[in-house]
Amino acid sequence: MSAFSKRNLLGIRDLSREEIEVILDVADSFKDISLRDIKKVPTLRGKTVIHFFYEPSTRTRLSFEIAAKRLSADTVSLSASSSSMEKGETLLDTVRNLEAMRPDVLVLRHPMAGSARFVADRVGTSVVNAGDGSHEHPTQALLDVLTVLDHKKRVDGLNISIVGDIANSRVARSAILAFSKLGAHVTVAGPPCMLPPEPETLGIRVTYRLDEAIEDADVIMMLRLQLERQQDPVFPSLREYSREYGLNRHRLRKAPKDVIILHPGPINRGVEIDPEVADGPYSVILDQVTNGVAVRMAVLYLLLGGRDT
Amino acid sequence: MSAFSKRNLLGIRDLSREEIEVILDVADSFKDISLRDIKKVPTLRGKTVIHFFYEPSTRTRLSFEIAAKRLSADTVSLSASSSSMEKGETLLDTVRNLEAMRPDVLVLRHPMAGSARFVADRVGTSVVNAGDGSHEHPTQALLDVLTVLDHKKRVDGLNISIVGDIANSRVARSAILAFSKLGAHVTVAGPPCMLPPEPETLGIRVTYRLDEAIEDADVIMMLRLQLERQQDPVFPSLREYSREYGLNRHRLRKAPKDVIILHPGPINRGVEIDPEVADGPYSVILDQVTNGVAVRMAVLYLLLGGRDT
Amino acid sequence: MSAFSKRNLLGIRDLSREEIEVILDVADSFKDISLRDIKKVPTLRGKTVIHFFYEPSTRTRLSFEIAAKRLSADTVSLSASSSSMEKGETLLDTVRNLEAMRPDVLVLRHPMAGSARFVADRVGTSVVNAGDGSHEHPTQALLDVLTVLDHKKRVDGLNISIVGDIANSRVARSAILAFSKLGAHVTVAGPPCMLPPEPETLGIRVTYRLDEAIEDADVIMMLRLQLERQQDPVFPSLREYSREYGLNRHRLRKAPKDVIILHPGPINRGVEIDPEVADGPYSVILDQVTNGVAVRMAVLYLLLGGRDT
Repeated sequence: MSAFSKRNLLGIRDLSREEIEVILDVADSFKDISLRDIKKVPTLRGKTVIHFFYEPSTRTRLSFEIAAKRLSADTVSLSASSSSMEKGETLLDTVRNLEAMRPDVLVLRHPMAGSARFVADRVGTSVVNAGDGSHEHPTQALLDVLTVLDHKKRVDGLNISIVGDIANSRVARSAILAFSKLGAHVTVAGPPCMLPPEPETLGIRVTYRLDEAIEDADVIMMLRLQLERQQDPVFPSLREYSREYGLNRHRLRKAPKDVIILHPGPINRGVEIDPEVADGPYSVILDQVTNGVAVRMAVLYLLLGGRDT
Repeated sequence: MSAFSKRNLLGIRDLSREEIEVILDVADSFKDISLRDIKKVPTLRGKTVIHFFYEPSTRTRLSFEIAAKRLSADTVSLSASSSSMEKGETLLDTVRNLEAMRPDVLVLRHPMAGSARFVADRVGTSVVNAGDGSHEHPTQALLDVLTVLDHKKRVDGLNISIVGDIANSRVARSAILAFSKLGAHVTVAGPPCMLPPEPETLGIRVTYRLDEAIEDADVIMMLRLQLERQQDPVFPSLREYSREYGLNRHRLRKAPKDVIILHPGPINRGVEIDPEVADGPYSVILDQVTNGVAVRMAVLYLLLGGRDT
Repeated sequence: MSAFSKRNLLGIRDLSREEIEVILDVADSFKDISLRDIKKVPTLRGKTVIHFFYEPSTRTRLSFEIAAKRLSADTVSLSASSSSMEKGETLLDTVRNLEAMRPDVLVLRHPMAGSARFVADRVGTSVVNAGDGSHEHPTQALLDVLTVLDHKKRVDGLNISIVGDIANSRVARSAILAFSKLGAHVTVAGPPCMLPPEPETLGIRVTYRLDEAIEDADVIMMLRLQLERQQDPVFPSLREYSREYGLNRHRLRKAPKDVIILHPGPINRGVEIDPEVADGPYSVILDQVTNGVAVRMAVLYLLLGGRDT
């Protein structure tokens, strides 16, 4: 019965444990809608959701659009290439213009860390951060947690290992915050150049060795090696990265028998994760995608005044 | 109670003063819908609106899409880059194909002056001109007038000054026609190369000096300097343009105390308009955007047989 | 009352004559919806249709989107350029991710022959092939047949001549299969390099001479010369192609008086078809486009469990 009083979802950092739990409870109750013959409820009829994706995206944009439509909201979409930002308009002017069309929610993906908060502080529309540079991607973390809950029935006390380019990953940042707030023990693993500068301030364990991250993990989250985002290559070669930090069947033998494997997608097969692992029995990668729709339905619903009943 | 009998909205030139007033009345009555909790009425349920934007656009396309959706119409969108025009199909063949899918309205933006009429003369679907080259942009003029009416309660007898590249601006052309038909006195200001060749035939006052345009203006409309559209630069430098024709706080002191500032967007901050002015108390730029949705709802409604009741 | 039990529409090859007739019957009954004042029925309310077009398309994508919306389905669209395939994700991973969002139908256009079946064999969602390389384009063939039925009242026993690049055309391949299954006599005409290697196995007549194909044809289907798809030019010049295989008024005199002309569009005016013919009294090209919406409504309806009542 607790209400969710936030107007925006900008990052996991802003959320209390209770708020995260409210979102997850609502998301859990919304899962069923996507399994029905008629996958639609009238909850957000007459609401307008603008999806403004300044970076390309498949699953996040479609997931938000499907979530909004299953709640009967109207949706319109804007990509960077089709927008007036090509004509030199500032982000703030663009979003103020969008606000003036009286949408109810603005879902924003933008390459600048902090852009979602920057916008939310300046417009009256609810803002959902769908990824702001290397800062946060809160709905991704929420769907990660929901997926872990589905398989483990709890998060408190679990060992969660996150592997890859921790320092530059909004997925990692949001996941560390979410799992930590819910009482999990988080370990991050990766080459030194990919680890956060002061990990001890985050309250997490750090290792350079994948095996060490794996051996007691209840959950392993492999990060995508974002080849397209690295200006200076941080690792001598893909082959070397894969040998040291790629998850393959052989390595997975060192993990507990009931480990589950998460990945935010899109996966680089044979780089950070082997096909045998991605498609294998421990992988819950596609469950994450399914849960993404439910989590985004919950977020849209709660931001627009819905209550956890 | 007067009906609107036009099948297309191609330009302000085609509209009588009475027809403009009908559209504005309906738009005024539709404003309220975007302020409701449920921003949707079933008026155009089962109608199909095709948005064919051959040039990129943020606010116009989204504004039309939101307008259509708030009236419960179905919308589909087509941009030049995703269309068969890339395969060499002519504009006429493309729109005849669109017509064959039995849409109710075709909203068209196209770089060729006269393209909207060309199409409307050849298809049975209602056509709305969302900007045809440097010719007309009628819904922009209608939202300009609606915004002036909101703030001034009348248009008749007002002094309206339009500043910038008058000769190449569809926004200016439609605005001059609309404000003149409604009884306003229109002044245009800009460098000689940007002024229309025979302004006296338009019944408007012309000046090369911004101060002269400002001093008795009830309304100042600053035009966007369309940097992306100028093949040959018409002015020595942006800095010089801005010094002569940019609206800043200092200059604005010469205007009447109750002046309002319009701009069609996207604005070039520091070029034709200073941030202090764009964001200041006289600016009604974002009101224009809000009114754009209402005007487009009214146009779609009236073209599809709605009546001003 | 016969049911349609297929889960996917991958190609005409998979369909029995009876199944084709069921689709055509349902399509025929759906035509009326697009002529109504309210062009919408609630049949597929709460269904989600994903349109994944890996190649650009105007009429096919819009036709599917309009068809889905007129049946009240929710639609989301994905193009190659906006998708994660740009980040190196495989087709299979992309569609598995789409499947995990629980759509009801995936409409796929992809340049690889066999891609639709490849996907359908690996996901649980219904798949509609909207063109897979040079393999099949079944909804195009169905709308071709529906258009012939409208004008000729039968297909059985008709002479159907298909002219152009038969070997590389998915439109030709699907049309040959559909018309043959329904009892028509199919002739293909084109230069040797554009004809299938073993035409006798297809049970069709082959000629290199356009006049021969025309003289007893009830139906002439001109294929688009796909200039954009030819890596090596297969013909010395457009002019020569047009002289030998282009349909003009002069040539058309050799055809029976009640011949009809089909073309899948977009047409190359003056290449494979002259404007006088494309826009003339024998042309049913735009009827094809209109029928495309009805055929796609029927396919979506039947795949989702609708019955021919």
